[in-house]
Amino acid sequence: MEEGGAVLQNSRSDKHLIGGGEGRRHEEFEGNDNSVLRVVETLLRLFPIVLSVTALIIMLKNSEENEHGSVSYTDLSAFRYLVQANGICAGYSLFSVVFVALPRLSSMPRNWTFFLLDQVLTYLILAAGAASMEVLYLAEKGNAATTWSSACGAFGPFCHKVTASIAITFVAVICYVFLSLISSYKLFTKYDAPDITNISKAVHIAAFHA
Amino acid sequence: MEEGGAVLQNSRSDKHLIGGGEGRRHEEFEGNDNSVLRVVETLLRLFPIVLSVTALIIMLKNSEENEHGSVSYTDLSAFRYLVQANGICAGYSLFSVVFVALPRLSSMPRNWTFFLLDQVLTYLILAAGAASMEVLYLAEKGNAATTWSSACGAFGPFCHKVTASIAITFVAVICYVFLSLISSYKLFTKYDAPDITNISKAVHIAAFHA
Repeated sequence: MEEGGAVLQNSRSDKHLIGGGEGRRHEEFEGNDNSVLRVVETLLRLFPIVLSVTALIIMLKNSEENEHGSVSYTDLSAFRYLVQANGICAGYSLFSVVFVALPRLSSMPRNWTFFLLDQVLTYLILAAGAASMEVLYLAEKGNAATTWSSACGAFGPFCHKVTASIAITFVAVICYVFLSLISSYKLFTKYDAPDITNISKAVHIAAFHA
Repeated sequence: MEEGGAVLQNSRSDKHLIGGGEGRRHEEFEGNDNSVLRVVETLLRLFPIVLSVTALIIMLKNSEENEHGSVSYTDLSAFRYLVQANGICAGYSLFSVVFVALPRLSSMPRNWTFFLLDQVLTYLILAAGAASMEVLYLAEKGNAATTWSSACGAFGPFCHKVTASIAITFVAVICYVFLSLISSYKLFTKYDAPDITNISKAVHIAAFHA
């Protein structure tokens, strides 16, 4: 029982050490984590700006007029949706890269916002790419059952540009798949933080009652 | 200096307490975490079995023959892809629900496998749903530029069944969106675990050197 004072004193110096060690360790971890992750994330947010704007411009300028008639991207709903999705994707990527590149500490509301928006954007451009690819497939092959003729026979250059635009969009989709993984990693690894505090609190309480 | 022995002894009993506390706390946390999450996850994996099988059966039985001709789901690539995606989705859901419902501790390779497969499945059925919805839209509205006639005027019941199948598929997509969030949560929250161990190791070392 005469060791009580020493225990109390020791537990107090321990507390100081625990606090300091935890803080440093966390800073180091966050530092390494942030420097590598921030570079990868910034690049993954920069690429889709270039990709989406390119896919957008190719599709916007895509119209053809010949002896068979005229066709433009506005005639097909899937291609209009692809242009809109690429526009939203480019805008959001530009907006988000500014926030990510800033060397400020990330907050939970910001992590949640990016996490949710990254997920939505991934699904949005994937759906646009899939729908457009299906229309392109129908335009190239035609369909006997529905008596839809192959439109790419008559509008070859139009179809080539559509193919290019869709291919570029799918590269942007791949970027967004990785971005949504990174943002979910950044969000959910933060969710153990309260648990660490609880454990170190439990250590102090245990030391006090020893 | 005569308190050195007491400190050493105390740090050893602390170690025991820390170890015990951490263990209990972790078990409690995992217990609560697992019981709620496992129920939600099991339900979210059970629903897509029913949904995908229903969507699959509706589409498989979907063929129509009348004075305009005959049409079957096999005539359109998007609908074939929808059937395949729903089949894979139902099979994977059945396979995964067995593993999740088992009250065993989750391991990292298992978490990684489910995380990756959940993501792939979500993108797979979302793409199938989006492509099929675009074909349905074209079949209902037709397209003037490509001279594709509205097929649903001639094959009304066929289109109704396609609509039902696609709608059910999108409910399965929503389940999978939440499932991929849960599996990324389960995977990435585990990634702080080594950090906790390091901190408690640092505590012991600090206590020994006090």
